[in-house]
Amino acid sequence: MQRQKIGILGATGMVGQRFIQLVENHPWFEVAWLAASDRSSGKPYGEAAKWKLDTPLPEGIAKMQVSPAVPEGAPKIIFAALDADIARDMEPKFAAAGCAVISNSSAFRMQEDVPLVIPEVNADHLPILENQSWRRESGGYIVTNPNCSAIGLVLALKPLTDRFGIDAIFVSTMQAVSGAGYPGVSSMDILGNVVPYIKNEEEKMEAETLRLLGSRVGKLVTPLGAKMTAHCNRVAVEDGHTESVSIKLSKKATREEILEAWREFTPLAGRNLPTAPAQPVEFIVGDDRPQPRLDKNRGAGMTASVGRLRPCGLLDWKFTVLSHNTVRGAAGATLLNAELLVSLGKLQPEPAAVLA
Amino acid sequence: MQRQKIGILGATGMVGQRFIQLVENHPWFEVAWLAASDRSSGKPYGEAAKWKLDTPLPEGIAKMQVSPAVPEGAPKIIFAALDADIARDMEPKFAAAGCAVISNSSAFRMQEDVPLVIPEVNADHLPILENQSWRRESGGYIVTNPNCSAIGLVLALKPLTDRFGIDAIFVSTMQAVSGAGYPGVSSMDILGNVVPYIKNEEEKMEAETLRLLGSRVGKLVTPLGAKMTAHCNRVAVEDGHTESVSIKLSKKATREEILEAWREFTPLAGRNLPTAPAQPVEFIVGDDRPQPRLDKNRGAGMTASVGRLRPCGLLDWKFTVLSHNTVRGAAGATLLNAELLVSLGKLQPEPAAVLA
Amino acid sequence: MQRQKIGILGATGMVGQRFIQLVENHPWFEVAWLAASDRSSGKPYGEAAKWKLDTPLPEGIAKMQVSPAVPEGAPKIIFAALDADIARDMEPKFAAAGCAVISNSSAFRMQEDVPLVIPEVNADHLPILENQSWRRESGGYIVTNPNCSAIGLVLALKPLTDRFGIDAIFVSTMQAVSGAGYPGVSSMDILGNVVPYIKNEEEKMEAETLRLLGSRVGKLVTPLGAKMTAHCNRVAVEDGHTESVSIKLSKKATREEILEAWREFTPLAGRNLPTAPAQPVEFIVGDDRPQPRLDKNRGAGMTASVGRLRPCGLLDWKFTVLSHNTVRGAAGATLLNAELLVSLGKLQPEPAAVLA
Amino acid sequence: MQRQKIGILGATGMVGQRFIQLVENHPWFEVAWLAASDRSSGKPYGEAAKWKLDTPLPEGIAKMQVSPAVPEGAPKIIFAALDADIARDMEPKFAAAGCAVISNSSAFRMQEDVPLVIPEVNADHLPILENQSWRRESGGYIVTNPNCSAIGLVLALKPLTDRFGIDAIFVSTMQAVSGAGYPGVSSMDILGNVVPYIKNEEEKMEAETLRLLGSRVGKLVTPLGAKMTAHCNRVAVEDGHTESVSIKLSKKATREEILEAWREFTPLAGRNLPTAPAQPVEFIVGDDRPQPRLDKNRGAGMTASVGRLRPCGLLDWKFTVLSHNTVRGAAGATLLNAELLVSLGKLQPEPAAVLA
Repeated sequence: MQRQKIGILGATGMVGQRFIQLVENHPWFEVAWLAASDRSSGKPYGEAAKWKLDTPLPEGIAKMQVSPAVPEGAPKIIFAALDADIARDMEPKFAAAGCAVISNSSAFRMQEDVPLVIPEVNADHLPILENQSWRRESGGYIVTNPNCSAIGLVLALKPLTDRFGIDAIFVSTMQAVSGAGYPGVSSMDILGNVVPYIKNEEEKMEAETLRLLGSRVGKLVTPLGAKMTAHCNRVAVEDGHTESVSIKLSKKATREEILEAWREFTPLAGRNLPTAPAQPVEFIVGDDRPQPRLDKNRGAGMTASVGRLRPCGLLDWKFTVLSHNTVRGAAGATLLNAELLVSLGKLQPEPAAVLA
Repeated sequence: MQRQKIGILGATGMVGQRFIQLVENHPWFEVAWLAASDRSSGKPYGEAAKWKLDTPLPEGIAKMQVSPAVPEGAPKIIFAALDADIARDMEPKFAAAGCAVISNSSAFRMQEDVPLVIPEVNADHLPILENQSWRRESGGYIVTNPNCSAIGLVLALKPLTDRFGIDAIFVSTMQAVSGAGYPGVSSMDILGNVVPYIKNEEEKMEAETLRLLGSRVGKLVTPLGAKMTAHCNRVAVEDGHTESVSIKLSKKATREEILEAWREFTPLAGRNLPTAPAQPVEFIVGDDRPQPRLDKNRGAGMTASVGRLRPCGLLDWKFTVLSHNTVRGAAGATLLNAELLVSLGKLQPEPAAVLA
Repeated sequence: MQRQKIGILGATGMVGQRFIQLVENHPWFEVAWLAASDRSSGKPYGEAAKWKLDTPLPEGIAKMQVSPAVPEGAPKIIFAALDADIARDMEPKFAAAGCAVISNSSAFRMQEDVPLVIPEVNADHLPILENQSWRRESGGYIVTNPNCSAIGLVLALKPLTDRFGIDAIFVSTMQAVSGAGYPGVSSMDILGNVVPYIKNEEEKMEAETLRLLGSRVGKLVTPLGAKMTAHCNRVAVEDGHTESVSIKLSKKATREEILEAWREFTPLAGRNLPTAPAQPVEFIVGDDRPQPRLDKNRGAGMTASVGRLRPCGLLDWKFTVLSHNTVRGAAGATLLNAELLVSLGKLQPEPAAVLA
Repeated sequence: MQRQKIGILGATGMVGQRFIQLVENHPWFEVAWLAASDRSSGKPYGEAAKWKLDTPLPEGIAKMQVSPAVPEGAPKIIFAALDADIARDMEPKFAAAGCAVISNSSAFRMQEDVPLVIPEVNADHLPILENQSWRRESGGYIVTNPNCSAIGLVLALKPLTDRFGIDAIFVSTMQAVSGAGYPGVSSMDILGNVVPYIKNEEEKMEAETLRLLGSRVGKLVTPLGAKMTAHCNRVAVEDGHTESVSIKLSKKATREEILEAWREFTPLAGRNLPTAPAQPVEFIVGDDRPQPRLDKNRGAGMTASVGRLRPCGLLDWKFTVLSHNTVRGAAGATLLNAELLVSLGKLQPEPAAVLA
């Protein structure tokens, strides 16, 4: 099968680098176009980017010339890893030019007609993209994935929402520095330290979680009607966000029922999406698990690990969630969205068959 | 004024070392006796202990010979920093021999007739020590201070309990490695990692918090009737426990009322206890504070710092607490209890005047 | 091809765990027997070991029962990862029982008739094993690989020794904590810290380096006649030893000649050893390379990375070496020695054909 | 005694913050003027600076308005902590306006008529400042202190140079992140990592070390005629540079003679400079010392700690040096230079008495 050409917006940043790493050897996609800031434009990627991943930069990519960030000459499938401020201006230009913009940015996540999607959780929200004006005019559209702190939590909650309902969610995060990009967090701020604040993170985490767990009726998504609070903290970890979670269920459930809900949660079974993990939510046995160092790479970084399920003195149950913030929480999330769109026939972005 | 002689049980451990550091130059106490395990007994302290603090081991202490851990020859005031298993057996022997055992161990914290005390919070619980059989027989007794994770939280909650009442408490901790002693946490477990588990810590934190905030009626302490849940995590920080807290108040309060409650919380004013900080709870201005690296040493390590007060989507308010776990959370807590006992005339541990 | 059964001595430790990880899916070997201390004996491995690697413990291994550490019932090929004190006593028992003991321990590395081998460097030292009394009596023998700090250095030096000769070696190391095993280095000792001392490490590093670069004449190895000094330091890195090196060459060489010597160093080409990296020594371009986080996994952890080659104000050249201390520096080193022995026909440890 | 007013150039940076911390409560100086970049000018310091020290920002300083970085209105004593590029342009303006510019910058350290001074080492180099054209014209001048990596090394070497002579110096550093300022080193670059490169650091360390240990003849300083090489590495330490050192002495010395040279090195005894440590070089007993976490604050951060003195296989002796890089290595170095200048009568920067 011929691999489809994709372009990367924001190719030199941390998420852009992960795109390159994950698409290298991908069976369906190949990187054909790389764009970054004006400063990088025209240079070979190997010069423009300060490669920070622990696998070597592929040689073909190193030699590829960085393009200006304009739709002319770009492929019709765009993986976008731009800062929100830039994305707000730039992603619409690509959508208007007929591109499928599959985005990791927060810029449009909460916009009414833009799907905010985790394939295992709410693939059924995708049809709202048909309401986008770009879609009608050029066939282009924007699809987004959530913030790195929301995605592991939502994966862990979805099987429970489906079976038992959720009324209240408490979460306190311990987030890795790679979530802030490069150079991102200064070493002076994090060595031997905790920073109990990440700008806008709590707001995003709360709003996105409820939207992802919400339901689509026609053209609109109604967020889940649960109460929620998030405390977001930065810790001295390279990769992997750890979260302490307490929940109140609508309908009581036993420990075994919860474990079963997680174990049986395989909504993408049969779709054969290359990046989808066999087990999206994996319960790790052991008093002191999951841990970023030991568990972040489960399912090639796409599995959300859960552990320490125990009764909560305030709500019903408490547990720990861990997920890889730049794989499942960013580049892998975008890539999986792209795979889902391919499997639904939405990545020949002609103004084609309407979904659902 | 003649300094009173104190002895230290568990003198070679991390808390024992802090005792030595804090009592050096103390106006009321001087270290006269050091005891540790049989392995250390008979050696000069400088050889027996692997000194891990960043101020030099005082020379006089270095030369002091480590005594066997028996009451014979020990002073009547004992600062105890033993593991719970050893404390359970050993502290009663010293109390029975007429010693005031001022202990950092968890062994007797929840025993009905043993005061669990933070001087600023519940000095009025002290009289229950009169019920101890040792007290009646020899004048000796045991007084304890709480776990390092509970103490900062309780300091921050006490002014709010007093003014508004508290119905529910949620806390998620990020605890420093020094809390586990030496060698304690393996570097293999914590570098670039989070360990979402500390043995028995959540149970202790929940029970001790409610007991400390409870009220004494006659010989008994009734714990605070609030719902509570704790998530305890270990992070790569040397000193300083950071905690994300949400609370529900019995009576609504504004942000300014809460800040005022903290600001005006000076229950030890006028007592002139040398280790008591001027401000037991200090609100740190700044989006991203408190932080262990920047704030743990406020009030010479005895102040609990709070920050990020903001509304909670689930309960009423959320905020961050930080306190120095081996000073305010351990050795300093014991020392401050000793100072309080002196000021109450209870450290001439003859079977003297009964407390209020 | 039928995979040969191997046994692991010291299976629960960090190096033992790496053996299991590396032999899983190995084309030539399979783990058939696991031994550890008496405390672990009789338990399923999954219970006896605290698995610390970031790939899951294979399920078959988790269920395997830990055997007592005696030769009876053990396979004839033993990978040994014992502490030196224990190895000194135990490895000879297995050799005497006819086992090929391929050891990571330091116990016998400097013994006259025990080969200390890196396959790319001094495979020609192997024949001295024929002098071992065990070899003559039972066919068994001991072969060792060097200390984790020596191996990267020696790989980098060997191509230069061969072409230019080396007269003097200065090295200062920054070693990862995993080199000390588990629990090994206390977090209290290494967070935000450097420990400028590793017991016996400098002595081992100096002696082993010169022996590995030495030459065999008949039954004896004569160490390289260079002057050498090592400074060994521990830093807060999980995996990967970084070393600052200065050298004096016997015969002057240009920068390009040195780079060429490294690039062309492929002494195992054609042998098809599964664990041998294509490029044993790889020069990393970039001012600030190699780095443990970015480069330790090159060649699946078996490549020694070099960088920053520049003139030295004191000797001739200086550069930085990095190698993965528990793969190339321990378990992978032992495994590669085993593969070399297979390829030489020495792993049917009958008293077979004498080497060379 | 009236405290002299000093001004700080580069007041918001890490070294500028240390100046404020160290001058607070200083008996001779008080901060009267703070200047920083145009962006900060006109703001209260508390707003302009992101305070990163673990003691609170003094309230008086917090309210002080940041001045533009021009000599008009500035005090005649200037502590300068500017980046070299900016210093090159700005320091001469202040010197030309009659200010004594006591600088931590590298811009003029190697200029023939600018003293590069450590008071304990080469106070006798100061008279070369009389050759500065600014000095002749306005009385102003520039005096500099060395790079943070050079200063601990030079303190340790000076007593040995004086007694035995030094022919060769090898040093490999493990430097703290605070040396790079704020934000400085990205956490992505240093967590779990070593960066074997600091831009221009090796060149500076080599040249400055030899100049500091050199001798003044008339108007010129001749650098020490030793061979030297430096390897500079960055590690995950907040404060404190650790260095592995080997040296060749001109005249053989025993271990005891070296220890004695360090012990007896008190060149400032009797001068009563407030910031001068009683013991500029302190030998720390213990196999594994000095360590940044335990030893960086000796002598209030002004003492260079040495340890692990042992024979070197290549040169004569090897040992470890540690010094606090932002106190002894930066702000404290400048402050001590200022105190020396006061004691020599050179801080009434009229074109006064020429130094001997």
